[in-house]
Amino acid sequence: MNIKGRNYHTIWVHPENDKIIQVIDQTALPFDFKIKNLTSEKDAYIAISDMIVRGAPLIGVTGAYGIYLALLNCRDENNFREYITERAGYLKSARPTAVNLAILIDEILDPVMQCNTLTDAVKVAFHKAAELKEREIEWSEKIGNFGCNIIEEIYNNKGETVNILTHCNAGWLACIDWGTATAPIYKAARKGIPVHVWVDETRPRNQGARLTAWELKEEDIPHTIISDNTGGHLMQHGMVDMCIVGSDRTTVTGDVANKIGTYLKALAAHDNGIPFYVALPSSTIDFSLTDGIGQIPIEQRAPEEVMWMEGKLKSGKTDQVKIVPDGCKIANYGFDVTPSRLVTALITERGICSANRKNIEQLFPDLSL
Amino acid sequence: MNIKGRNYHTIWVHPENDKIIQVIDQTALPFDFKIKNLTSEKDAYIAISDMIVRGAPLIGVTGAYGIYLALLNCRDENNFREYITERAGYLKSARPTAVNLAILIDEILDPVMQCNTLTDAVKVAFHKAAELKEREIEWSEKIGNFGCNIIEEIYNNKGETVNILTHCNAGWLACIDWGTATAPIYKAARKGIPVHVWVDETRPRNQGARLTAWELKEEDIPHTIISDNTGGHLMQHGMVDMCIVGSDRTTVTGDVANKIGTYLKALAAHDNGIPFYVALPSSTIDFSLTDGIGQIPIEQRAPEEVMWMEGKLKSGKTDQVKIVPDGCKIANYGFDVTPSRLVTALITERGICSANRKNIEQLFPDLSL
Repeated sequence: MNIKGRNYHTIWVHPENDKIIQVIDQTALPFDFKIKNLTSEKDAYIAISDMIVRGAPLIGVTGAYGIYLALLNCRDENNFREYITERAGYLKSARPTAVNLAILIDEILDPVMQCNTLTDAVKVAFHKAAELKEREIEWSEKIGNFGCNIIEEIYNNKGETVNILTHCNAGWLACIDWGTATAPIYKAARKGIPVHVWVDETRPRNQGARLTAWELKEEDIPHTIISDNTGGHLMQHGMVDMCIVGSDRTTVTGDVANKIGTYLKALAAHDNGIPFYVALPSSTIDFSLTDGIGQIPIEQRAPEEVMWMEGKLKSGKTDQVKIVPDGCKIANYGFDVTPSRLVTALITERGICSANRKNIEQLFPDLSL
Repeated sequence: MNIKGRNYHTIWVHPENDKIIQVIDQTALPFDFKIKNLTSEKDAYIAISDMIVRGAPLIGVTGAYGIYLALLNCRDENNFREYITERAGYLKSARPTAVNLAILIDEILDPVMQCNTLTDAVKVAFHKAAELKEREIEWSEKIGNFGCNIIEEIYNNKGETVNILTHCNAGWLACIDWGTATAPIYKAARKGIPVHVWVDETRPRNQGARLTAWELKEEDIPHTIISDNTGGHLMQHGMVDMCIVGSDRTTVTGDVANKIGTYLKALAAHDNGIPFYVALPSSTIDFSLTDGIGQIPIEQRAPEEVMWMEGKLKSGKTDQVKIVPDGCKIANYGFDVTPSRLVTALITERGICSANRKNIEQLFPDLSL
């Protein structure tokens, strides 16, 4: 997508040196736009663990390029298979909870292990990583096109700007391009459908205000940042036509784990008769789970995320301020579960389906258990 | 209530000089504890307009003491009635939307205008202001005692710590003592009932994290600060036994306008079968309104409140950081309306009543239209 009018992916091969992988440094956004060079698997590991890259699809592709970089740096031609197996384990440990990372690393390892020489392995890894990257883009685009149809239908009925509320960042920064929740919005905008996005700030890490708003601004999509408390009021007053969010994990019965606060917006949408969509690639569906609230473990994160707020001082310097009184206890749950009864439909790379077991299994018979 | 073990009100007469009124400077909390001296009606005006004092009951009493200070400073004994009438208009304009301010100023003006001499008027104003202050404390205590019975009942059924979620600051800092939503909590704690309070941060002005958490900490009430997104998850997992919030305006039919985000918590409470109480003095009931969502105008506030965050730098200095990208639009609605169907009951100074017209009018026949 566009940044200052120029097209970017979140990760790419250096145009003049294919031994360097480049990524957008997401820790600096939106205050600074920096590109980071990765030249070793250690660089890839740090990029993932320090959240220079984030979002399941992007983490997975970064891991795959990490395998390529590891092979480039391999000095023991005769034992490259043992070497890369060990390095793969290292890369997988960069964020152990993101299942996507391990899956993509395994996918790239498979053809690499069948190579006879290290030179071949490097070539194969390079092409496989590019292939995995392209697949992520393709999935995002498909989600975008299916979701765009929904937006277009609302527009055709309403005849004026479609107001869409989103929570957190399920944007192209979390993917390679297009995003998941944002993909339908970008597709609709490029098709000339007038859209306006209500961007939930998304405390405590503020991915909505920091990343989604920045993405939308760079793509010239009309949008308004709101505190997370605001969506219910907007829905009561007819100022929201639909909600679209992403998902970190979805049960086969259609319960959706997503950034904390998603459930509250789904309740408000339901209470006001507003459709609530979840955009997700099938890789986030856990076909072994049937009860989201009971079975999906919710990560508790560091209290510092609530305690400190990062931003720019009047001087222009980026700094952090402590926003709670000394000595107060803080709890920081990362996700919540929206029960399927509150989800209008899932928007996947294979099409739109209702959030229930029958429809999900019908759309993904090959993935069902 | 207690601050560092010493008992305070939010406003009081200087113990050694009754020409000085003292208030806690709430703009400095929780980072600094400062006391401000008011020696003129201009000081009172600034204290109200700059939010050194805040909360309808406290604003009203500060306005009343402003009348006393104005009379103290009156230099024209023969025309003190004209003088004080003009000064009353000035004081009322400090925050024109807070109806409480105008009401209390009119209440103190009434006996003042009947005085024959300025000396008498000063004395009468001094005593009337103290009387109005005492009435606010009495109302808070009554709300506290009625609400405490609810907490005690939950405790008797549960047999362990009662977990209470609150939003914003309807605490003693907004009143003179005890608070509204917090009064039942303080009363329960002093009765030995084990309570724990989930404190919503309350973006964008963070009155929960800044004021409610600070109040509770100083009173040694166990509490945990959470982002506003968190309450739904806690309720899904049985970690909340009841919610108590305050109200800025309540319709005669029981719809409640309160800090933005209250509606989302009420929805989550309803979805999880958790009682949702609103604590309010009868002065916030607008007996002329029957439809909260349709009739209560919702104030839009400055985008800067969402854009900038105040806190302490690592150096210990208080400063602000800008937390949104440059050039993004922001909306900042101050309140939302919780429909009466989501309110379990109202806790008032006359007792507990259901959130419907019949019960509200039964409890307040003298105030009904």
